This record gives sequence, C-alpha cells and structure tokens, in this order.
Amino acid sequence: MGDEGESSPWKSTTGKASQKKTYQPAGFEPRRKTGLEEVNPRVREIQPPKGDMLLRRAEEIRAELQQGVKKPYKEVIDISQDDFHSAGMKPFSFVRQVIAACLHPELLHSGKLPADVCQRAQRLLKECDGDSVGSYSDSCGIPHVQRTVAEFITRRDGGLPSFPKDIFISSGSQRALMVVLRLLAQGEGMSQTGVLTPVPTCYTFPMVLTEVGAVMVPYQLCEEQGWALQVDELRRVLQASRGHCDPRVLYVINPGNPTGHVQSRKSIEDVIRLAAEERLFLLANEVYQDTVHGEGVEFVSYKRVLFEMGPQYSDTVQLASFNSISNGIGEGGLRAGYVELLNIDPAVALFAEMLLCTDICAPVTGQIALAIMADPPWPGDPSYGQYAEEVQASQETLIRNVRRVEEVLSALPGVSCQPAMGGVNVFPRLYLPAGAVEQAKEAGVEADQLYCKRLLEEVGLCVGPGCESGQREGIHHMRLHVKVPAEVMEEALGRLRTFHLRFMSEFS
Amino acid sequence: MGDEGESSPWKSTTGKASQKKTYQPAGFEPRRKTGLEEVNPRVREIQPPKGDMLLRRAEEIRAELQQGVKKPYKEVIDISQDDFHSAGMKPFSFVRQVIAACLHPELLHSGKLPADVCQRAQRLLKECDGDSVGSYSDSCGIPHVQRTVAEFITRRDGGLPSFPKDIFISSGSQRALMVVLRLLAQGEGMSQTGVLTPVPTCYTFPMVLTEVGAVMVPYQLCEEQGWALQVDELRRVLQASRGHCDPRVLYVINPGNPTGHVQSRKSIEDVIRLAAEERLFLLANEVYQDTVHGEGVEFVSYKRVLFEMGPQYSDTVQLASFNSISNGIGEGGLRAGYVELLNIDPAVALFAEMLLCTDICAPVTGQIALAIMADPPWPGDPSYGQYAEEVQASQETLIRNVRRVEEVLSALPGVSCQPAMGGVNVFPRLYLPAGAVEQAKEAGVEADQLYCKRLLEEVGLCVGPGCESGQREGIHHMRLHVKVPAEVMEEALGRLRTFHLRFMSEFS
Repeated sequence: MGDEGESSPWKSTTGKASQKKTYQPAGFEPRRKTGLEEVNPRVREIQPPKGDMLLRRAEEIRAELQQGVKKPYKEVIDISQDDFHSAGMKPFSFVRQVIAACLHPELLHSGKLPADVCQRAQRLLKECDGDSVGSYSDSCGIPHVQRTVAEFITRRDGGLPSFPKDIFISSGSQRALMVVLRLLAQGEGMSQTGVLTPVPTCYTFPMVLTEVGAVMVPYQLCEEQGWALQVDELRRVLQASRGHCDPRVLYVINPGNPTGHVQSRKSIEDVIRLAAEERLFLLANEVYQDTVHGEGVEFVSYKRVLFEMGPQYSDTVQLASFNSISNGIGEGGLRAGYVELLNIDPAVALFAEMLLCTDICAPVTGQIALAIMADPPWPGDPSYGQYAEEVQASQETLIRNVRRVEEVLSALPGVSCQPAMGGVNVFPRLYLPAGAVEQAKEAGVEADQLYCKRLLEEVGLCVGPGCESGQREGIHHMRLHVKVPAEVMEEALGRLRTFHLRFMSEFS
Repeated sequence: MGDEGESSPWKSTTGKASQKKTYQPAGFEPRRKTGLEEVNPRVREIQPPKGDMLLRRAEEIRAELQQGVKKPYKEVIDISQDDFHSAGMKPFSFVRQVIAACLHPELLHSGKLPADVCQRAQRLLKECDGDSVGSYSDSCGIPHVQRTVAEFITRRDGGLPSFPKDIFISSGSQRALMVVLRLLAQGEGMSQTGVLTPVPTCYTFPMVLTEVGAVMVPYQLCEEQGWALQVDELRRVLQASRGHCDPRVLYVINPGNPTGHVQSRKSIEDVIRLAAEERLFLLANEVYQDTVHGEGVEFVSYKRVLFEMGPQYSDTVQLASFNSISNGIGEGGLRAGYVELLNIDPAVALFAEMLLCTDICAPVTGQIALAIMADPPWPGDPSYGQYAEEVQASQETLIRNVRRVEEVLSALPGVSCQPAMGGVNVFPRLYLPAGAVEQAKEAGVEADQLYCKRLLEEVGLCVGPGCESGQREGIHHMRLHVKVPAEVMEEALGRLRTFHLRFMSEFS
C-alpha cells in the first residue's frame, strides 16, 4: 500500500458504497435516483466516527495478508474497540451453557450440563411465552428479567429498592440511550434540546445525538486531575449554551469512557445538585460499573447517591441509568441492556415503552444473558466455583494490563498517561512533534489520526485516534482498549513501543 | 371482572404506568417533572395499537386464573399475534442445534449433535470476530451472512444476481423498515413525506410511520376481490394526497398481512409501472414469502418482476425488499431480518449503514438463525430428513388450519371470509347487529373491539380487532393468526363458534 492517491482511506469514507456495483444490464444509462438532497436532512448530518477509516483499512490489510502480501507483521491487532471476545477474551461458561440449554432443551437431559445450569434454563424457559426463546417478549422485556435486574440494582445499592416497572430492557445500552434521547429531543434553533456531553466521550455518542436531533454541548473533563468532571465547567458551558439551544439534559459516563476516571461520591453529589438547580435531566452511562480496578476506588451509582441526598433531590431529579451485558459480561454480540428511569412521569414513561415497541423487543437470548449477569451463580451452587474463577481471571487480566500499559507508556518519550481507575480503556496523551502535526495538517487530518494510521500500516496495530473521542484543539491522544488477553496486550505494547520510538525520531 | 368503571381496559391504555409507584419517602410533595408537554412532539403522537388493551386484559385474566378466579375456561388462547412459538409451534431442530453449538462450542465434541450441525457451527463461528457470538459484528451484519442471504435471494429469483453489498441485516424486518423510512422521511406540511399504505395493514406500521415523521396515505385493498391491490385506487389516493403531503413512498405487503392475499405477477407489474411513472420509492414487505399456501398460487418477488420488466424499470425503480426470521423460520425472539436495497445511490445507502450503526449491530445469534434460514440443510446432509419433515409438518398445519377456519366461519351467521392464499393470518368480515354497534358507540369503541373484548372475557379467546389493522368506516373484521398447533386451532374455533352464536342471538 503506501499509495495516498484516490484509494486513500483518508478520502474514502464510504465502505459498502465502494464495493461492487448493482446488477445492471449493459447499454442503459441509469436515470436519476433518490439523491442525497432527498434524504432526511437530520440523517444526512450524521458523521461516521473518525476511526472508521482505520477500521476499514485494517480490514483491507487483513485481506492483503491473507492474499500473501508481505508485511512486517503476521496479523493485525485491533485494540480500538470495546469488544472483549473479538480480542480473544473468553466468555463465562455458565452464561453460554444456560443460553445453549434454553435454545436446545434436549441438552437438559444430556447429562452434559451442571445441575444449576439445567435448573436455571428451565426456570428461564418458563418465563418465555410458549416456553421458547423464539417467542417475542413484551416490548420492555420479559417481566422476570425486569424483576431480576431490579433485584440486582437493589443489592448493588445497599437495599435501596428498585422496581421492575422502572426497568426498560433494550437491545443494548446505546439503544436505550437513543430511546430516552428521542423522548427528550425537540425544538429547533434556540429551543433545540441541548445535551451536555463530556469530552472525551464514547465515540458513537455524537452519531446518536445527531440522529435524534439534539445538540451536543461539550464540556471538558480535566485531564490534569485524572479526567475528573468539574462542576464549574458544567456551569460555564450551561451558561454559554443558553441562547444557542435549550440545554435540558446532562450526560455523564461513570466510570469514564475512554478516560477510566471513576467519580467520587462527592463529585456525584455536586453533579446532582447542579442538575436539581438547573432542572437538568440526568443520563448516567454506568456500563462499566463492574470494571472498577483502581486500588481503594469504588463504584457508587448515581441512583444511590441521589436517594441518599434526601427527598429534596430524590423526589425531583430525573435520572436515567444505563447498563448492559456488553461490558458487564462481555457479550456485546448478544445485544441486551437496560435503562432504569427514575422520577419520570408515568405518562412520559409510557412513551419510552412505545418507542421500544417499535423495535418489537430485545433479543430473548440477550435478555437471558442479562438475567444471568444480574443473578449469577451464588456460593454453594455447582457452577459457582468455575464462574467465580472465570470472573476473577478476567478482572486480573484487566488489572495487569492497565499496570503494564502505564509502565510501558511512562517509559516512552512524548507520552503521558493519567492512571485509569475503571472501565476498559486508557486514553494517553501524545505530544507529537511539530513536523508530524504539520504533515497531518497538509493531509487534512488530525495529527493523532496520522499517528494511528501509520501505527496500523507499519506495525499492524489498530488503536483509536484521540480526535474520535474528542479532545481540546491542538492536543492529541490515542485510545487503547485493555480488556484483552495478556499476551495480546504484550504484543500490542511491543509494537506500539517500536513504532512510537521510530516515529518520534523521524520527526526530531 | 365485569366492572367497566375506572379500571376498565377501555380507559386504561397505560400498562407499566399503572403499576406500583417509585420509591418515595413519605411526607414530601414531589415537584414538577418533565411533563408530557416537554416530550418530543413527534413521539407524543405515537398511538399504541388498538389491540393493546386486549393484550393487557388477557394478561390480567391469566393472572386471575392463576389466583384461582373461576372462569368458564382454564386458559386464555391468544391468536391475535404472529408469534409461532408463543402459540405452541415447535422450532426447527437444526436451527437451534447450530446456535446452541455456536454459543457453547464444547457441545461440538459431545457426540450429541449431528455432523452437519457441528460443521455448520464451526463454519459460522469462524465468521464471527474472535470466533465468538459474543463479539459485535459489522453494523450491516456479518459479511458471511450477507453473502448467504444474497445467494438465497439469487436462488429464489431464478439466478437473478443479488449482491452482499445490497443486503443490510438488522434486528428484525420492522427495524429495517424503520431505517429506510427514517432515511426518506422529511419535510413538514405539504412537503412532508407521504407513504402510501395498504388498508388493512400490519398493525404496528402506523407507530413506525409516526415515529419517523412520515404521513400515512391509506389505500384500500379490495375485499370483494380477495383483498387484491388495485392500481386505480393507488392513483386515486396519490392524486388526492398531493397538496396535503409529498407522497414519495409506496408500501406493499405481499403476501398480505393480515389479508392473506398473494399478488400475481401482473399485479406486481402494474404497481412497478406506477412506481416508475410517479417516481415512488417501493417498500416491499415480503416477510411471508415462504408461507404461500393457496393451491396453484406462487410467490414472485418484486425484485424478480422488476428485473424481468427490462432496464427501463430495473435501472430506475428504487426498491427495498424486507424479510426476516420471525416468519421465515418462526424465530421472532431471536431478532434478525434484512432489507435488500436496489437502485439506491451509494451515497444514500451509506446513510442506511450509519443508521444501523447507531444500533451497533443485529444480535449475532439472530444473524446465525438468518444464515441457516437462507441456507438450510440440503438433500444428502445428515440433518436434511428431520429438517424437511419439520418444515413440511409446519406447512401442513398451516394449510389445515386455514381450511378449517374457512369451514367453520362459513357455517356461522354474520361472517364472511375471503380465502387466504398466503401469510399466517385470516381477516374475516363481521356483520355485527345494529344493537352491538350502538352499544359500542356508547362505550366509545369500535364494534369489533367490543366483540373481541367480550370474546376474550367470555370464552378466553384473544383475536385482533379489525380496527387495529384498519378497515373502511362502518365495516368490521377480526384478525386470526392461524400458524398454531392444530389442537389449539380447534379449541379456538370451538370457543369462537360458541361465543359468536350467543353474541348474535343476544342482539337479534
């Protein structure tokens, strides 16, 4: 490759569009079709994430390697996305055994599955219409799964009750996020719903905002303080955005994505106080609640803090808290998540239900995985030993990788990295040489895109460019997903080190 | 029950909203929350299907029966929805075995599964990132599944090629429909996108239209001619709607839902000619393509007819054709479907991809089911015999039920039924007595709602009221789902007969 001409991934953002043409008998001039100008203008504004071109290029490189093209590496390593299994992490056996038995109940009598797997599968099948995972469920989910999730939340929050009616099950947390945002988004111009959004943020969030027709009101997280959320910054952007839009929604991600920051109880209290004062609807993305790994650091839910602040807050602040199986048990491909809606007018909640209804329902296999995540094997159960071991091994790998990434990066010139306390990413800063920044400018891309592109081409490592997650102008980062097998992490770090030293010296 | 007061299902449309209240310490007055007036006005317009109250009441009755309340029946039979497994139909073993093996690959070595199941599972796992169904797939689906679907379509259409790039896999055909409609919907007032929609129609379609912000332009199917689509009626409503909206999209359902009509090649040609003349974007809901059961009647796809009409049409008419596993193999709970987009500008198709991307991807277990539907066991494969038997048994049940329904209904006074040729529903007409119509009017409901409500209360049979699917004013129908086990159908017909005779004599 190396050709930066017409086929350059900088220029091609299309993907499918660039593939083989539709069947057309020769000799006929196609007439005008629905052009872009006839596409919903809101849809037309959706921008693909900035890392897409890297992913497409990674696919091309994989194809080239398969075709025998010589490269200095045998395979591409992709640590740009939160996809545990894709990177080689193993599923939890209990989850898979139960779903397999639900799908093919003959297995229940095969003698091949532990007793608690069979009991659980039978229990869950009874909760499916017609005892089959092939039936539709209620739009908001199987009532038993809603109850199981509510019990999970109640345990998590030290007994503070959660009610099944507040649990809306969807095909993933992002889908739930979109449902709530679609509910709230309205207006145009000055009256258009504004959503205060952390920067850096989960890189698919801007697409979601554009699709629902809300305005992003970015607030900067403080890198120097380990990517802490600062309420003063929230106040500042809130003030500044009024007159441009109607900032009614505050989006927080805790533990942070991609920052790895974990909010303290005090910080959450401050946010809730602001939300109460300013009547902001709080969206708390808490999908990493089970992956806190900083020493002495603990996850506290927004809901718990809200209710412990007393009725002045717990009766008034509207909160939507999101969680999913993608991160909880690493089963993103099964697609299930939920949102707990608190302090929502029942008439409003009804519309959330109707929006979910247009999806029919979340996949039942995903809902079963969610039920297991919320109610895993307990001590004394036949499967408990193996389940606990698998969870611990997965957590140990994560902790080990985070430490190793920090060790390796801290020894590199031109890199600094805030310690990550939770989540599955790190987001180190890159101090790129002026020459590289200049070159990127000429190519019309961000300097971290240039860096990541060359990292991919030269050593076959795919990481997320900082600009995709968002960052202050002129500052650069990269995003590394770290919940991968230890040997993959080592190989990735080795390649990163080799490339980085070469890149820095090239421009020195 | 019998109380038609405050708790009457006529008045309560809420569902969840009517459940237990959120946790609130006593003694505090809740302050104002986001009220309905702050909800996205487009969302606020969404109306739940008219049969929802019946479904909720059916659930209540089930609960009452469990609590020991005496009724003239032991259980509720629900034949109001297209949910095969919920009604007791069995899944196809090969589908379930393969997905179970993909989920829990240890089964591959258990000696419990046929060789072709193991081979298929291994093949499909290789196509999943990290060899796991827990990984995300591309937004448009696993490329191998796109290819398999394209090959299926090519075979179906006598060799007319289908290309993987045109196949967009989603979590169900309704989701795909919504993506295409969201792409096309725009404007307000006279410029708002109008969608020509058959009446009667699939009862969730109006919700979808409202959510995407398009206007429904209803066209009547001709009951007297077996619910045929008439191009003159299309022309009439097209004309009449101009000036009120911008009718750019024509939605057809073939085989018909809930009518059971199957379009002839000639009828499809007429529709395509109109679409070409009037530059209409064609949406063809073809989810019942595998359930044609009328003697001598055959399914022909819109795509095939379009391409056989020559380049004047095949190069110009924009067509989206939908299909799904929900009807194809009765696995609605697994959630997967696809749309094939033809004659779409690549730049426009790219936005379809981005809309799917905001969902992340369709559930991988569903995608695997779709791959199997598109490429079932073939003669000579170890599983072929069983698969063919199961498919045949399922088809025979359907044909038998359709015949039995027609027999029973034709012997009842005040009922007429057009013979169904395809699909899984029948939509008989009810000639209800003036007294019943009057009573319904007083209760503020349609007469077929009253009929269905009493049918449910008195004999425990839940069917869809005609007004939910749409019908001419003053005319009444009911919708019966007929892909259920033969014994369920017999029991349902017995109950229907008993009730109907009583109801008619009550008002005579």
